[in-house]
Amino acid sequence: MKNDLFLRALRGEPLERTPIWIMRQAGRYLPEYRQTRQKAGDFLQLCKNPELACEVTMQPLERFDLDAAILFSDILTIPDAMGLGLHFVEGEGPQFHRPLNTPEDFKKLSVPNIEETLGYVTQAVRVIKKELNNRLPLIGFSGSPWTLATYMIEGKGTREFKKVKKLLYQNPEAFKELLRLLADAVTEYLRAQIDAGVDAVQIFDTWGGQLSAQTYKNGSLWSMQLVMDALTQSHPHIPKILFTKGGAHWLPIISQTNAQALGLDWSADLPNVIKYLSALPAHQKKAIQGNLDPAVMLCTPDVIRREAEAILQAVGTYTGHIFNLGHGITPDVPPDNLKVLVDYVHERSQAIRSSS
Amino acid sequence: MKNDLFLRALRGEPLERTPIWIMRQAGRYLPEYRQTRQKAGDFLQLCKNPELACEVTMQPLERFDLDAAILFSDILTIPDAMGLGLHFVEGEGPQFHRPLNTPEDFKKLSVPNIEETLGYVTQAVRVIKKELNNRLPLIGFSGSPWTLATYMIEGKGTREFKKVKKLLYQNPEAFKELLRLLADAVTEYLRAQIDAGVDAVQIFDTWGGQLSAQTYKNGSLWSMQLVMDALTQSHPHIPKILFTKGGAHWLPIISQTNAQALGLDWSADLPNVIKYLSALPAHQKKAIQGNLDPAVMLCTPDVIRREAEAILQAVGTYTGHIFNLGHGITPDVPPDNLKVLVDYVHERSQAIRSSS
Repeated sequence: MKNDLFLRALRGEPLERTPIWIMRQAGRYLPEYRQTRQKAGDFLQLCKNPELACEVTMQPLERFDLDAAILFSDILTIPDAMGLGLHFVEGEGPQFHRPLNTPEDFKKLSVPNIEETLGYVTQAVRVIKKELNNRLPLIGFSGSPWTLATYMIEGKGTREFKKVKKLLYQNPEAFKELLRLLADAVTEYLRAQIDAGVDAVQIFDTWGGQLSAQTYKNGSLWSMQLVMDALTQSHPHIPKILFTKGGAHWLPIISQTNAQALGLDWSADLPNVIKYLSALPAHQKKAIQGNLDPAVMLCTPDVIRREAEAILQAVGTYTGHIFNLGHGITPDVPPDNLKVLVDYVHERSQAIRSSS
Repeated sequence: MKNDLFLRALRGEPLERTPIWIMRQAGRYLPEYRQTRQKAGDFLQLCKNPELACEVTMQPLERFDLDAAILFSDILTIPDAMGLGLHFVEGEGPQFHRPLNTPEDFKKLSVPNIEETLGYVTQAVRVIKKELNNRLPLIGFSGSPWTLATYMIEGKGTREFKKVKKLLYQNPEAFKELLRLLADAVTEYLRAQIDAGVDAVQIFDTWGGQLSAQTYKNGSLWSMQLVMDALTQSHPHIPKILFTKGGAHWLPIISQTNAQALGLDWSADLPNVIKYLSALPAHQKKAIQGNLDPAVMLCTPDVIRREAEAILQAVGTYTGHIFNLGHGITPDVPPDNLKVLVDYVHERSQAIRSSS
């Protein structure tokens, strides 16, 4: 690997500078992405076309000096493969034609055959790996079982999560079985991505922070741990990043998992997080990934540099920091602003680390 | 005061049972509320009519054995008094006719004369206090300066807070002055409520949890501390409840304020919170308020009792717990479910505390 900074950060090795990649770096803020998407037809057709998925995966790497590529796909491919009928409504985000309504609906589901139903994803991984040609590591990913369940039950995005939570509280046993099934599916899906060539995996627990502490522990975190245990068994050398958005206050329990790195959203108090992680025994040490507020990317270059500097200062010389936003980059960010961020993080982190 | 359990909990006194009130207890889930609201015309007219505001404040007290009343009003009365033109769009929530767009707009604002512009609120307090006739304590409230600013700038509810955050990051000094002005207005508003008779006040920092740790400390929390310092000066005996939704991971800094009680949403891990607060020096001790997931109220009585029991067990005999939901009760809750909760909390907390 020509640039393996990202992988070395995941292993907690001392580095000459901080690696950076950006959630949704292949996305709507790039005019060339919008062009390819139009060529594909719509977002889902873009995900399902390995050559075009490769094309958009590579686009941000041509513009910016990023330290990792991430597979272009969607977090909801698994429920689509299970037959729920994923589609995208303009301006409203993802929806399912056949959402789950009762615990009886859960029982009709089974783990999909990955090569048959999600072969377009593993094929995209192979095409991208070839195109990357060992220039940078490639990140594979999946939604967490709980995050998949929220969409599968609500049928679309939601602010209040009432339908899914009512089912969760009212039918804890059946819900646990649903999460177990989804954990099996996520495991098989990530294994297939790894076998096709990804160098690390990230679990996006986008809606974990919506749970109560107890249902997070016994539900979302429990099912992600099933996935990570299985991956550790089958692929011990592939690092795992766990990102629970809104989960900063659960750091004491999240840091006990066997993830190599923790994703942090912008609300996480970095000095406290680093103090906590630094006090853990060596075998429990975690890399961290984040956590610039995506709204900063809408500001002028001086503000972007000021806020990036604050994060680099807070991290100091902690070994194992991967710079990222606290959530995906938004479509209204001027692409040049990302260049400002990437270049600043590289220059300044090198200066900070060489002077310490 | 016939029932002063709530006030004694705020003072951290040992109690024979746990007091309970519910955010939005006077609200749309009650058919009699919907009737009064129709009589008033719309929500805002209901807020502005002291007699009808009193009527809906009293309604939940007739049905349930609650331990506190809360003034019926809206968190956005202050920006309305500042001339921004509050109105409600059916199904979309609050909106402003004249939102703030630039730092220059901030400078045009001034602290409103409370009796002239918000006299309907203080009048409602007086009418309600008379009607309560010392049966229960009455809670006054305000939105936090940051929460008011989000609505004043976005002009309506938002998921991403991009307009307000862009202004915050791009113009930190001007934004701080806006928060200072809003802190002055909130202080005057709460002082007027106290002078009219409320027995405790709560600051609703509904959107504090959307901030980065640094902007929360220097922005929302800083401005709430201005309010609480001023109230401590003028009204030292009136307890203050600080509720930052999504702020559980900032407990170490929130617990350093001079609030008497901390509101906790459902994501807060109670055993950890209690462990943390129990270790503080005696003069820093805080009461806690919360934190049942509002979605539980949509389930059957056995589930409501099971989840309430889990909270009572987690709290144990910690002195100073006020039972509440982690956020407002939703309009689709069957009123009988609230009776189940209130009665269970009273019965069980009495049993737990008498057996310990």
